[in-house]
Amino acid sequence: MSDIKRVVLAYSGGLDTSVILKWLQDEYQAEVITFTADLGQGEELEPARAKALKAGIKPENIFIDDLREEFVRDFVFPMFRANTIYEGEYLLGTSIARPLIAKRQIEITNLRDAEAVCHGATGKGNDQVRFELGYYGLRPDIKVIAPWREWDLLSREKLLAYAEKNGIAVEMKHKQGGAPYSMDANLLHISYEGRHLENPSNEAEEAMWRWTVSPEAAPDQAEYLDLEFEKGDLVSINGTPMAAHELLAKLNELGGKHGIGRLDLVENRYVGMKSRGCYETPGGTILLKAHRAIESITLDREVAHLKDDLMPRYASLIYNGYWWAPERKALQTLIDNTQQTVNGWVRLKLYKGNVIVVSRDSKTDSLFDMNIATFDDDGGAYNQADAGGFIKLNALRMRIASRLKK
Amino acid sequence: MSDIKRVVLAYSGGLDTSVILKWLQDEYQAEVITFTADLGQGEELEPARAKALKAGIKPENIFIDDLREEFVRDFVFPMFRANTIYEGEYLLGTSIARPLIAKRQIEITNLRDAEAVCHGATGKGNDQVRFELGYYGLRPDIKVIAPWREWDLLSREKLLAYAEKNGIAVEMKHKQGGAPYSMDANLLHISYEGRHLENPSNEAEEAMWRWTVSPEAAPDQAEYLDLEFEKGDLVSINGTPMAAHELLAKLNELGGKHGIGRLDLVENRYVGMKSRGCYETPGGTILLKAHRAIESITLDREVAHLKDDLMPRYASLIYNGYWWAPERKALQTLIDNTQQTVNGWVRLKLYKGNVIVVSRDSKTDSLFDMNIATFDDDGGAYNQADAGGFIKLNALRMRIASRLKK
Amino acid sequence: MSDIKRVVLAYSGGLDTSVILKWLQDEYQAEVITFTADLGQGEELEPARAKALKAGIKPENIFIDDLREEFVRDFVFPMFRANTIYEGEYLLGTSIARPLIAKRQIEITNLRDAEAVCHGATGKGNDQVRFELGYYGLRPDIKVIAPWREWDLLSREKLLAYAEKNGIAVEMKHKQGGAPYSMDANLLHISYEGRHLENPSNEAEEAMWRWTVSPEAAPDQAEYLDLEFEKGDLVSINGTPMAAHELLAKLNELGGKHGIGRLDLVENRYVGMKSRGCYETPGGTILLKAHRAIESITLDREVAHLKDDLMPRYASLIYNGYWWAPERKALQTLIDNTQQTVNGWVRLKLYKGNVIVVSRDSKTDSLFDMNIATFDDDGGAYNQADAGGFIKLNALRMRIASRLKK
Amino acid sequence: MSDIKRVVLAYSGGLDTSVILKWLQDEYQAEVITFTADLGQGEELEPARAKALKAGIKPENIFIDDLREEFVRDFVFPMFRANTIYEGEYLLGTSIARPLIAKRQIEITNLRDAEAVCHGATGKGNDQVRFELGYYGLRPDIKVIAPWREWDLLSREKLLAYAEKNGIAVEMKHKQGGAPYSMDANLLHISYEGRHLENPSNEAEEAMWRWTVSPEAAPDQAEYLDLEFEKGDLVSINGTPMAAHELLAKLNELGGKHGIGRLDLVENRYVGMKSRGCYETPGGTILLKAHRAIESITLDREVAHLKDDLMPRYASLIYNGYWWAPERKALQTLIDNTQQTVNGWVRLKLYKGNVIVVSRDSKTDSLFDMNIATFDDDGGAYNQADAGGFIKLNALRMRIASRLKK
Repeated sequence: MSDIKRVVLAYSGGLDTSVILKWLQDEYQAEVITFTADLGQGEELEPARAKALKAGIKPENIFIDDLREEFVRDFVFPMFRANTIYEGEYLLGTSIARPLIAKRQIEITNLRDAEAVCHGATGKGNDQVRFELGYYGLRPDIKVIAPWREWDLLSREKLLAYAEKNGIAVEMKHKQGGAPYSMDANLLHISYEGRHLENPSNEAEEAMWRWTVSPEAAPDQAEYLDLEFEKGDLVSINGTPMAAHELLAKLNELGGKHGIGRLDLVENRYVGMKSRGCYETPGGTILLKAHRAIESITLDREVAHLKDDLMPRYASLIYNGYWWAPERKALQTLIDNTQQTVNGWVRLKLYKGNVIVVSRDSKTDSLFDMNIATFDDDGGAYNQADAGGFIKLNALRMRIASRLKK
Repeated sequence: MSDIKRVVLAYSGGLDTSVILKWLQDEYQAEVITFTADLGQGEELEPARAKALKAGIKPENIFIDDLREEFVRDFVFPMFRANTIYEGEYLLGTSIARPLIAKRQIEITNLRDAEAVCHGATGKGNDQVRFELGYYGLRPDIKVIAPWREWDLLSREKLLAYAEKNGIAVEMKHKQGGAPYSMDANLLHISYEGRHLENPSNEAEEAMWRWTVSPEAAPDQAEYLDLEFEKGDLVSINGTPMAAHELLAKLNELGGKHGIGRLDLVENRYVGMKSRGCYETPGGTILLKAHRAIESITLDREVAHLKDDLMPRYASLIYNGYWWAPERKALQTLIDNTQQTVNGWVRLKLYKGNVIVVSRDSKTDSLFDMNIATFDDDGGAYNQADAGGFIKLNALRMRIASRLKK
Repeated sequence: MSDIKRVVLAYSGGLDTSVILKWLQDEYQAEVITFTADLGQGEELEPARAKALKAGIKPENIFIDDLREEFVRDFVFPMFRANTIYEGEYLLGTSIARPLIAKRQIEITNLRDAEAVCHGATGKGNDQVRFELGYYGLRPDIKVIAPWREWDLLSREKLLAYAEKNGIAVEMKHKQGGAPYSMDANLLHISYEGRHLENPSNEAEEAMWRWTVSPEAAPDQAEYLDLEFEKGDLVSINGTPMAAHELLAKLNELGGKHGIGRLDLVENRYVGMKSRGCYETPGGTILLKAHRAIESITLDREVAHLKDDLMPRYASLIYNGYWWAPERKALQTLIDNTQQTVNGWVRLKLYKGNVIVVSRDSKTDSLFDMNIATFDDDGGAYNQADAGGFIKLNALRMRIASRLKK
Repeated sequence: MSDIKRVVLAYSGGLDTSVILKWLQDEYQAEVITFTADLGQGEELEPARAKALKAGIKPENIFIDDLREEFVRDFVFPMFRANTIYEGEYLLGTSIARPLIAKRQIEITNLRDAEAVCHGATGKGNDQVRFELGYYGLRPDIKVIAPWREWDLLSREKLLAYAEKNGIAVEMKHKQGGAPYSMDANLLHISYEGRHLENPSNEAEEAMWRWTVSPEAAPDQAEYLDLEFEKGDLVSINGTPMAAHELLAKLNELGGKHGIGRLDLVENRYVGMKSRGCYETPGGTILLKAHRAIESITLDREVAHLKDDLMPRYASLIYNGYWWAPERKALQTLIDNTQQTVNGWVRLKLYKGNVIVVSRDSKTDSLFDMNIATFDDDGGAYNQADAGGFIKLNALRMRIASRLKK
């Protein structure tokens, strides 16, 4: 293993990646470069720096990067242009963050002349796939270290023992049985897996949820919200333009307040098993509903249906970790092409878990033609007799077949 | 037009079809057979008989049929097996009723030796297409009379004048400007179109909704609900087995009480225009959520994804009126084949517009394997090292391409 | 009909469009502008000018345009980037020409301030749809005159009588029973329909085919051919770069000589009926085979599969006349995006109806990696053990399901 | 490794599987059961028995099964119902045989109470995946031994040394450098890979092909052929009904004689690399062409298009080894459902590599309606005016969008 001299570790500063850091130093005798990303997960990142320094990492080998704007602008928003949902329910909050982390990690290998990367994802989940497909797609000769697939610290007890033996600070919660859930958070969502959730016939505990109040605890007063879109992307809330990550943060705040965006799901992992996850995606839930609404008046029918037909495939690509694959990029060109006309505003009502579209319009791109749609006299804008021929020819093949049967 | 001797009219007893009845008698000199279906729209049907008799229809030419069980069992439930949604939102409440009406209408043409059928749908909407594709598909030589595409009574004033001239009773509401909305109801939903809704930037009025209370007005106490499925179909609620149409009626009652299932939508009609509709589908909204949940633990991943990929196409077929077309039937065989294992129960929580899945299980068909899914020690049920090879080979094509670029 | 002052007629100079010209002058009292396109159909076009002048058309109202390069470069080649085939067999030779004719015809309405366009396609075929969808898509207020759907000259006899009465020159063949087939030709193909072909159980006559010799009559000596591609488009033949339309003409010559590209097909028209057509597409048949071959070494697997999945839909769009529709354009962006790496050469062997790929390579973009593909020792380029994990995880969902069954 | 007592080996009697047999006895100390299938590969199978006996296999542990009829009837024909082609060219001759071998091998593990199966496929190819997905799907607890992924005999030299050391007879060709190609044969095809073919810019040698003459060497006289289909399956040739495997053998003989069915391809393997293969599929090439032709007059347009849209996915499933997966089965129900009406005959002409459809008809299920299709007077069977309305409504969305742009 002596051929790896420098390794870039995706480092949160938590117990697991702290143990990994030490293990890399010991096992690989490698110089470790730590990379900690701010994706809006809502944690202080400076403690990670302190811990890294304490673990002997050189200051120039500690990367703490604020990726929030890039995350929302170049990953979350493009994904929402497709109204992306995995398996009918999941908004892909974890999946969409992994390609950015992988990208930055590879950039750092180039900056610091490292041969390897390392992540703390387990061998059972999707994240290892998402990270590593990103690594390999962006730097084909990269060496990947996935400790959970390599080491013998597979039980929590062994991990704690290793930490204590090596002087790694262990928070009280870990000593008391560990976090009740495996969690992941970023500006799009927070997820919960494991422990009490592992039996899908157990109801999730109210105390688990962190970002949203329950619908019951949400305000009794509904709140209206105006969202404006340009080329399919949200650009302002209630008339106030903001940076992409600020917009999503604002939607999270509003959604969280109104009990919006909780999800309890059994999903199919790429590695072949079913797993149960709970998710809070307050801002994303609002955004999806609004995006569909603005598309409903600005997008051509067949274009909308083409998008709907391709969406599950696009969602699976992201879920499975193929963001950097050429087929995802090809689909993205199609999706982005369709969003040129997706301009206008949507009015929503938020109330106790509900996101209700109440109106929508586009000054420049509305394809809704009141003259044609009206049930009242349309002054000849639409000739009802045309429908007769339309139906006759659409029915022709069925009539020929039906005649044959008799 | 003397070649049409007998015509079967889809007859509600309302103003429009009453005028049509008279117009058929005058214009076509035809014997009119009236057909009124009980699809659970919640209206008394006997008044239709009285009106038909009064209009001179012979008793043996008056058909009033209770189709509720057939409707839910053979149309609604098969559609829900596919988790069918049109354009991301619409549960197809109107679309799914039309094929059954068309079928029964054609059956009656055969029973009564009629050459023609007639419906009261306008030349601008989807319903004319759905009716007529059904007619032609089931009886290729049928003659179709679509008065709204033929006559000159295109304005409400002319219609009223014709009614009064011909002694057709006109309800007060029609004299006072007509119903505020164009509505359609059956056990699956009630829809609203036209008038105040024709401007998609207008918010719908609270007074419009008939089947559901607003989330605000719904009980402050959540209600739990246990639904049991067999082969993808709902079979009991809270442990009580019921006929299909009773189950849906019960879900409607529960959903309506809790403010569930309202939708405000701009949709794309098959005839080429966008239109704005509001829908209440309380039971269907609950059913869709529960069906997805029971599938989540009983359906194979790739089967589920195949269904998701095909669903928008299947939804368009139903929306556009192709229920009786061979491609819909071919898709149905696939969908039905997948539902053999969709057996189990789902627990839901209903609260102020929210349908929340809280747990699900299947005694016989759960593919959720706790031993494999667990983040804790799995005793070797899953070998984490396998994931390394899995990722390597999935990444291979990307690595080769990436190497080439450099 | 006096509101149409000027109409642009798609005019070939043949009998049908000559009668139409006169009929427009009489029936619509309109000034007729004739438009004749050179799409490489292999006919002299100047006679059309003489006939138009003789029919009283002003010189400035006669448009004879050489559209060959635009046709191949902007229509044929983009379509071949998708390996487009309709219903498994048909290379869309007629379909792909119609959008260009429609586009130019609309341009001329703008140049000459005309309100209407007119074409000579019948009311039974696809071409009327293709023309008119193009017209409406490019100029929504255009008035369309489709004589075959309007006039009473539906039989050949009436047409001839009209021609003679109005002094329109009628070629001998028409007097002797008319052309044996309805034909359409351009640089991509020539098609035959009608008459002897109307019974699909009749074999086509050898004498019908015009562009290709029969395989039997083709040379006994095979001919090798080197084709070079850039970004998915053919750019040179046997090392000689040519303009797009010259390349296709050259392939037609070679294919015709070797008996390549005949097709005898029953196809499904958009208007609802089946029809039998025979087609000669010598150059296109060669091009399709070569394009697939160059893609086979330069295109990523998943991108290739995505294209294959979408191809039938794209083909139907073109067949049905939706070239100018936004969904076709959206698909085109995807297709074009995939062709960036489709660079290299293909060696073919032409022999008596066969197009045989014998070799292919790309200096810049080959994804074929001999080191990895070899069955001999690969020096560790590929780790066979990886396949074990790959298979295990891909099999996992099937194993869990299979275990449940037992 | 002592936990494996009995292992069922897919055994051809050739060098590789003979070495594997010995290696299993030595390495695993296991009782070996040999399984040799007759899939119509055209080799004597009794020598395999003799070799197995000589290697010490007990007579009751030697299985030599004639699977030809099952292969064609239950695997090849169902696949051809879908007009299945992988990557636009490949008829899946190898892929479709693997699931049957896996099935029988698992059956034998049950008959002989074995815990493990073993195959001789390499770790680089698709066949290992196809075998093992079959094994796991049919018996989830099966142990799989894949020697090529385990042992150290990775070079030909080591393999030969092992054989000689262990008294395994080695044919002269192996000593002289080995077979020039890696081949696989069954009733559907013979394939060639490796060696001279590993460079895709090399032309394949004429001497390589075994089943077909070259088009040049084929008879100068064309041969006509009548094929009859029932429910999508071939049932007779030139009026003679035969068993499924006899039909395919007959087509192979005819195709081989006329130089039909050679293919030279670069394909994408499931394990992530491109590989170059040459294939001879004489009968299959004829069958595919004929099946499409009989479908062309008996299948509804939208059903045909649905099949075309799904075919590439179905082909990939088979290519990748998912025959026994539930999504393949679900697709099969759809495909089989569509074939009820695929009854009739097709007349073909075979000539020097060409398969030419010359006519087709169905007494019972032809949807071709000459009265409607004719360009001559149809006596009102089709009302051309209907096309106007059909086009107008199909164009409506494009007109609205186009108007907006101006």
